[in-house]
Amino acid sequence: MGTLEGHLLSGVGFLMYAFYYSSLTSLALLQKQTVLNHLLLPRKLLGHRLIWQVSYEAVMKVIVPAFGIIGEYFYPLGVNRLKMIDWKDPRRLFIFKDNWQHVTMFGFFILSGVVDIVSQAQQARWSMKLERAAEALAFYVLGLLMITHIENKNALEIRVHLLLVLPAFLLALVLTVEIWVPDNAPLWVLKSWMGLVLSTWMMQICEMYIPLTGQPWRADNPMDLAFVAIFFCWHLALGVALLIAIYGLCSLWHRHASSWTKTLGTKYQRCPTESGGEELEKLSAEAVPQDGGV
Amino acid sequence: MGTLEGHLLSGVGFLMYAFYYSSLTSLALLQKQTVLNHLLLPRKLLGHRLIWQVSYEAVMKVIVPAFGIIGEYFYPLGVNRLKMIDWKDPRRLFIFKDNWQHVTMFGFFILSGVVDIVSQAQQARWSMKLERAAEALAFYVLGLLMITHIENKNALEIRVHLLLVLPAFLLALVLTVEIWVPDNAPLWVLKSWMGLVLSTWMMQICEMYIPLTGQPWRADNPMDLAFVAIFFCWHLALGVALLIAIYGLCSLWHRHASSWTKTLGTKYQRCPTESGGEELEKLSAEAVPQDGGV
Amino acid sequence: MGTLEGHLLSGVGFLMYAFYYSSLTSLALLQKQTVLNHLLLPRKLLGHRLIWQVSYEAVMKVIVPAFGIIGEYFYPLGVNRLKMIDWKDPRRLFIFKDNWQHVTMFGFFILSGVVDIVSQAQQARWSMKLERAAEALAFYVLGLLMITHIENKNALEIRVHLLLVLPAFLLALVLTVEIWVPDNAPLWVLKSWMGLVLSTWMMQICEMYIPLTGQPWRADNPMDLAFVAIFFCWHLALGVALLIAIYGLCSLWHRHASSWTKTLGTKYQRCPTESGGEELEKLSAEAVPQDGGV
Amino acid sequence: MGTLEGHLLSGVGFLMYAFYYSSLTSLALLQKQTVLNHLLLPRKLLGHRLIWQVSYEAVMKVIVPAFGIIGEYFYPLGVNRLKMIDWKDPRRLFIFKDNWQHVTMFGFFILSGVVDIVSQAQQARWSMKLERAAEALAFYVLGLLMITHIENKNALEIRVHLLLVLPAFLLALVLTVEIWVPDNAPLWVLKSWMGLVLSTWMMQICEMYIPLTGQPWRADNPMDLAFVAIFFCWHLALGVALLIAIYGLCSLWHRHASSWTKTLGTKYQRCPTESGGEELEKLSAEAVPQDGGV
Repeated sequence: MGTLEGHLLSGVGFLMYAFYYSSLTSLALLQKQTVLNHLLLPRKLLGHRLIWQVSYEAVMKVIVPAFGIIGEYFYPLGVNRLKMIDWKDPRRLFIFKDNWQHVTMFGFFILSGVVDIVSQAQQARWSMKLERAAEALAFYVLGLLMITHIENKNALEIRVHLLLVLPAFLLALVLTVEIWVPDNAPLWVLKSWMGLVLSTWMMQICEMYIPLTGQPWRADNPMDLAFVAIFFCWHLALGVALLIAIYGLCSLWHRHASSWTKTLGTKYQRCPTESGGEELEKLSAEAVPQDGGV
Repeated sequence: MGTLEGHLLSGVGFLMYAFYYSSLTSLALLQKQTVLNHLLLPRKLLGHRLIWQVSYEAVMKVIVPAFGIIGEYFYPLGVNRLKMIDWKDPRRLFIFKDNWQHVTMFGFFILSGVVDIVSQAQQARWSMKLERAAEALAFYVLGLLMITHIENKNALEIRVHLLLVLPAFLLALVLTVEIWVPDNAPLWVLKSWMGLVLSTWMMQICEMYIPLTGQPWRADNPMDLAFVAIFFCWHLALGVALLIAIYGLCSLWHRHASSWTKTLGTKYQRCPTESGGEELEKLSAEAVPQDGGV
Repeated sequence: MGTLEGHLLSGVGFLMYAFYYSSLTSLALLQKQTVLNHLLLPRKLLGHRLIWQVSYEAVMKVIVPAFGIIGEYFYPLGVNRLKMIDWKDPRRLFIFKDNWQHVTMFGFFILSGVVDIVSQAQQARWSMKLERAAEALAFYVLGLLMITHIENKNALEIRVHLLLVLPAFLLALVLTVEIWVPDNAPLWVLKSWMGLVLSTWMMQICEMYIPLTGQPWRADNPMDLAFVAIFFCWHLALGVALLIAIYGLCSLWHRHASSWTKTLGTKYQRCPTESGGEELEKLSAEAVPQDGGV
Repeated sequence: MGTLEGHLLSGVGFLMYAFYYSSLTSLALLQKQTVLNHLLLPRKLLGHRLIWQVSYEAVMKVIVPAFGIIGEYFYPLGVNRLKMIDWKDPRRLFIFKDNWQHVTMFGFFILSGVVDIVSQAQQARWSMKLERAAEALAFYVLGLLMITHIENKNALEIRVHLLLVLPAFLLALVLTVEIWVPDNAPLWVLKSWMGLVLSTWMMQICEMYIPLTGQPWRADNPMDLAFVAIFFCWHLALGVALLIAIYGLCSLWHRHASSWTKTLGTKYQRCPTESGGEELEKLSAEAVPQDGGV
């Protein structure tokens, strides 16, 4: 699926996850949490009682790549690429390498989802480490396969995909670090931002299939190659802007929801400034200039 | 010995060691040990009393590579490659570079085994650091020589061996880290997994000598090159599966052996859940849903 | 602005910042501070009361790159490069890549300045982390764009700019480390030195436009390429020399200003040796040989 | 001085330093020191009283490279290479690049020596960090210049010098780490070993000027290139062997000197096992089997 649809599915999947994770991070920062809790599916689903509780995230990690894998093999309808070796050919050549590469990448994200589901059923502390490790592995595999994926492709595709590998590899590194240093707030922010950059860059790749200027990108033009790198830097800034926007929306939601949350019993300690409404806000705003000038 | 036999000897050696190390790690995790103790040879061997106790592992590290070295020089029977310079030639050319490269690699594993034996005789705390350092050195040398080993070889051999260097180098890095951070459980798991990947990948290299499809791998075919990377990713997942299988078997063994071990005097504190049998297991399983929903 | 003026503006900007930062570091070391405080603008500026206090540094980070951006688009006077696509051409080619690269670099330094201003208004502890992260991002972008900037240029320009990327990337790394390890004095010194090297190297690039020998540098001459690397090493030593000179001047200023500062109320604990004048200095100088010879 | 003499001077210098540093490390380990003290010059030298005490090491770091620099400019006798630009040529070409590269390398080692001398006069704790930083800088510069040094040279020279850069760069990295983690015994051992490898490899380069086989090394022969890497691995093992030999000799010296040292007043706490002679040694040897079998 080196097509618009393939990139769009992955891109939208990553984008949803990045938005979800950024919101979680924002709320955790606003509520001064020390642990990042994932939202769990309701205990009763479609009338059935779940054997154990799983997070939305884990379910999505299994479902979205599963659609991707089905698409790789059977899309467009009528084709069947579910074979690896052309047995009819006496030389027994390998076939459909791109599809198997994509399937392998999707497969490791499913593995990460399965690890999440199993680990959330155990609810042990060490299982957090396994969740991080499985996620990191998925991104390492993404990077490793992407590097072989771009062989024998043109300079433009190589550059575009290398710039995709960069945030994917950094995400994998950060997730690896989180195995040993869990619950570190700056790492949450870094992951959120990297995730946003990765997914908006996937959208940029989609744009290259249907260019806005109406003219195709030229792989043999140094100008186009240079602007790919410039646009990537702009996506870095776009990621910052999106993160600030999400934080702002969560901040608004948090302020209005705090009274409602309080009645339901809050689990997290909050300082009075945050839950106390406008009067305290004003007071603290007035208080700032007095202890300033340090 | 760039032959099936050479790769098989090394591969089986690594595989045995990886299985052994994974079992040790699994048992250590199950018994909540903070130190990874190696199994020692019985005090009396073949009627002789050993001067000091050594681990099975250290003995194997010396014996297996020793067979490898003998094979490099004198296998197939009748040849003798135990010379480095062709003195008959007036130009005095170097000869048998591949064999000397393999011998050097084997030699450093023997060095690691000797360090283990000496260090286990001393039983000092700092000697653990030396054991890790010598093991790390063996893997660094493996990586360094592999890089020069693949010069002037075809693209397929280069890729296959580079993907062997990757886990070897990561193992070396993890072992280096263990010099300063000993007794870290996630590092044991990482080492076990890396070891399994390294050894199953050695088996994959063996497969390339006797391909399952009956058709040789083609170094000039981009398809074959791409599938090498895909298969490597599958070996990463295979390593995970093997590790889970070993952990499961050790878990079963541990549960059944715990009563027997108890009578012999256990050294490790265990929580009642693990040693208490089915009733406690059920209780804890029922207890989970009540404190869930976090 | 791949011209003398463009490099001179950036070079002078970096140099001023490096001198300023080195002085701050020197004074912090002399006063045994544990936190590096930035100088703030006076509360009243041109008769107006500022809403919040900002540091000189943050203001300069916004103003200097802003001039750079204006220069990129409208210098020399009469030109207008504020467009990215040549709409008149039916192929809709990208144009002015160098200018958009420079503008992007400048833009991320402005972003860092804006983050500084906002964060200094909040005066929260975590905002320090954001300041460091934004600064690091600016230098990462500088490195990333510089690498694409030197494509299709000659060997001399490639080398000169790679040697510029080296300290920029190290600065970015150190700033990244400072997100997690703030207030580490050796890191301040490292940053000061790197900043000095970066800015004197920018001056060296300016020199290449108006060579001192009167003869242009030759990109096709291996001798010239070799001497570029030699000169870079000399700039490393020059950075050390400048840092020692700045520390020396700050030390003189600190010694003479300490009595004056004392009356204004010092914020920082000082040991008697430093504030106590010449008598104590002599005493401690005499005391050294007695506890020497260790 | 890309000659036998030039490499011999540097090689012997490094070797002397590596032996000296390995002995210091061995003695520090034997005496269970937590700080590595350098030997200082006697207070009275040639009848003159020294203003402050300096270590032998610092003096050697200044004197040996100074000879190197003089050799670069005026050896063989009669030549004078103390100029950088050929002013007679109207093109004003750079000349003597190799010599200026060597002089720059030597110069940074002199800088490191000067920093040592100044810092040992101050005897402040932070000055240790400066000593390590200056040493690290010297090795970074060595690596950086070596990389440009091997341009336009043959494959054999490139490989030989890259294998020299490897331990030099690792030494620089370890020295950098020591700025933040001083007094870490495993790092001393690592530095000693790296220093030994670096200097015996310099000796190997000298051997290439006067080959033992009587036949020159062939840069165009893949065999010769492969054996360079094999020999480097053997030098890694040789470094281990030399380190063990030095430790053994120091251990003998330490055992015999301990009674003599005791009367002079020891500064370091020693456990009775080490200073107590043969009886305790035997006892502890007998005690081992009893607490073994863990």
